[in-house]
Amino acid sequence: MIVLGVDPGTMTTGYGLVDKVSSGINFIHSGKIELSGINPIHERIHRIFESFLEIIRRFNPEELAIEDVFFAKNVKSALKLGQARGAVLIASVQCGLKIYEYSPLEIKKAVVGYGRASKEQVRSMVKSILGIKDNLGLDEADALATAICHAHWTKY
Amino acid sequence: MIVLGVDPGTMTTGYGLVDKVSSGINFIHSGKIELSGINPIHERIHRIFESFLEIIRRFNPEELAIEDVFFAKNVKSALKLGQARGAVLIASVQCGLKIYEYSPLEIKKAVVGYGRASKEQVRSMVKSILGIKDNLGLDEADALATAICHAHWTKY
Repeated sequence: MIVLGVDPGTMTTGYGLVDKVSSGINFIHSGKIELSGINPIHERIHRIFESFLEIIRRFNPEELAIEDVFFAKNVKSALKLGQARGAVLIASVQCGLKIYEYSPLEIKKAVVGYGRASKEQVRSMVKSILGIKDNLGLDEADALATAICHAHWTKY
Repeated sequence: MIVLGVDPGTMTTGYGLVDKVSSGINFIHSGKIELSGINPIHERIHRIFESFLEIIRRFNPEELAIEDVFFAKNVKSALKLGQARGAVLIASVQCGLKIYEYSPLEIKKAVVGYGRASKEQVRSMVKSILGIKDNLGLDEADALATAICHAHWTKY
């Protein structure tokens, strides 16, 4: 069962794919979509949508795991983040993926064991859980953490 | 030149189409997408996306006019509204529409003449400008007001 985890943002959107098998969780791939150079904002949102269609077609995940956001710096950034999140959700529904949402607390607990872990601690545990030796960006690590969280909650 | 105006929302999304011709603005069609019965939220967002693909294919507008939102009750509703707005933008970019954003003040000024007009006043002026005799929902009126605002700003 391939799970696509995502960390949506309007500057960078991270994604990561893991395979949940009976013996554990295998790392497949991760990456990030660089958006800071793309303007205006609607072109950025569309790029996220198209990139996710591509990722889904390439790796064929069955489920999407995404952070359930209730917090943003302010209303303006919440509107932007909502648009980026919407792009990921539309591409996923379009491709028939089942969608699962987890709170930041659930995600951190699933990988680090406690909810106040730093982003660096999350990355370090993600690398350890998945046996990743190479460098891993913080956005990719967050996306993979969300996928790991979902894999933990899912029984096969 | 056909303009599609939109008033995005997660409960109801209104839309309206006008034709800007050298002699003025002609009403083409308006409607609303009812979303309150559709759950979970990602299905709702996807419905907006699909509905707009359909509307665009049916009426073939060249330009989208949408309110530039900077205000929401709180961060949670801003995130939801952002997702709905993202769905409209993605469908529009996907279909090659040019996108224009206007502030609520610009929209109200374009139809009523002053920025503090009530929704009912906006509707009344939209009906008068477009010669609409039938009932018109407030969301449709807002969408048509956005389209009229764009038509006012555009020179041919």
